[in-house]
Amino acid sequence: MPTENNSFTKTAKNTVKRGHKRALYDADTVYSILDSHFLCHVAFEVEGQPHAIPTCHWREGNKLYWHGSSKSHMIQHLSKGNPACVTVTQLDGLVLARSAFSTSVNYRSVMCYGTPQLVEDAKEWDRQMELFFEQLAPGRWPQLRPMTAQERKATGLLVMEIEDAAAKVRSAPPGDADESEYPVWAGVVPLKTVVGQPQVAPEGEAAPLNHSIMTNFW
Amino acid sequence: MPTENNSFTKTAKNTVKRGHKRALYDADTVYSILDSHFLCHVAFEVEGQPHAIPTCHWREGNKLYWHGSSKSHMIQHLSKGNPACVTVTQLDGLVLARSAFSTSVNYRSVMCYGTPQLVEDAKEWDRQMELFFEQLAPGRWPQLRPMTAQERKATGLLVMEIEDAAAKVRSAPPGDADESEYPVWAGVVPLKTVVGQPQVAPEGEAAPLNHSIMTNFW
Repeated sequence: MPTENNSFTKTAKNTVKRGHKRALYDADTVYSILDSHFLCHVAFEVEGQPHAIPTCHWREGNKLYWHGSSKSHMIQHLSKGNPACVTVTQLDGLVLARSAFSTSVNYRSVMCYGTPQLVEDAKEWDRQMELFFEQLAPGRWPQLRPMTAQERKATGLLVMEIEDAAAKVRSAPPGDADESEYPVWAGVVPLKTVVGQPQVAPEGEAAPLNHSIMTNFW
Repeated sequence: MPTENNSFTKTAKNTVKRGHKRALYDADTVYSILDSHFLCHVAFEVEGQPHAIPTCHWREGNKLYWHGSSKSHMIQHLSKGNPACVTVTQLDGLVLARSAFSTSVNYRSVMCYGTPQLVEDAKEWDRQMELFFEQLAPGRWPQLRPMTAQERKATGLLVMEIEDAAAKVRSAPPGDADESEYPVWAGVVPLKTVVGQPQVAPEGEAAPLNHSIMTNFW
């Protein structure tokens, strides 16, 4: 958890050793990267085998949430007190330097550590699902057909208090300005995610799309 | 490794249990997702703590490669015979259904399992670094300032034979056509990565950019 100066403490687990100049531990940076996308990768190990599974996450305060099928490998394993690492990565550009060694990427990433638990309180469960939708597609939740008891049962919701976290950010031109005479183009090729034209379901349009729901991430 | 029918065998490790209709085990699908991006997440566990680290990978045949600082946590740990999972995820769209339960994403992801090793043969090391650049930015390798002995020493290169793998793909409209009367817009909001205008390094242009180097991924 962040300490009084609003930063995560550097521990053996989260201290960035290589590229440590790119490391940031303040909660504002950690939270802003977590909030910048809904896609994360969750790492956990089962019987000696690590797994990294992509899923959708959201955040409230110092807690991360994600859901899945109640019977999934991930939900089953992580509801039993096993540790996890949740990583969010935003790729912002390809950094083309004069050498292979200085070639890099601009990115924002964060790794969060903790031990997830199942959310079992029904009221909190509903509140979190609504919060997820409010972050994913603001304003859409009240428009949706309400969840059924069976759907609730089939969905496992995990919460993880962020015990340790470390962000890494690179956002700069190539680092080899001292080799700028070398006769090769150097610079940054920016990359970004864009939203395409919405494709209405083949069954047709039962109501118009509220386009403002897609403003949260892109 | 893929068996005679060019598919990965379903084992306890890689068999997709939930959403199994989206699972694919054929090598063509696995390889095409691996080759669709250079960003992966590598999962491994150190002393009971899982980690998922974003890095850049490439592939040759049934082998995955990635590199890092020789002294990094990841390279050090994974050069000692410890297992890893390498996951590549492409997010293709947000699937807005009539209910929260049917809301989904269109994506292509692959999880590959194996035990990495350090590439120590100097000739193979050079060949792989060139192959990486050929996939990342075709034609750029011969333009670069050659690597120095010190840079080689500072770079650890891992190879992982893909022992088991499973892909998951969703590429479809919302799955709740039976609820199409419900008065809410349903459909897919496509997402894609685009390349922005290249930004030349502040030191200026020592040579023109060969734009064709950016055609491999986007």
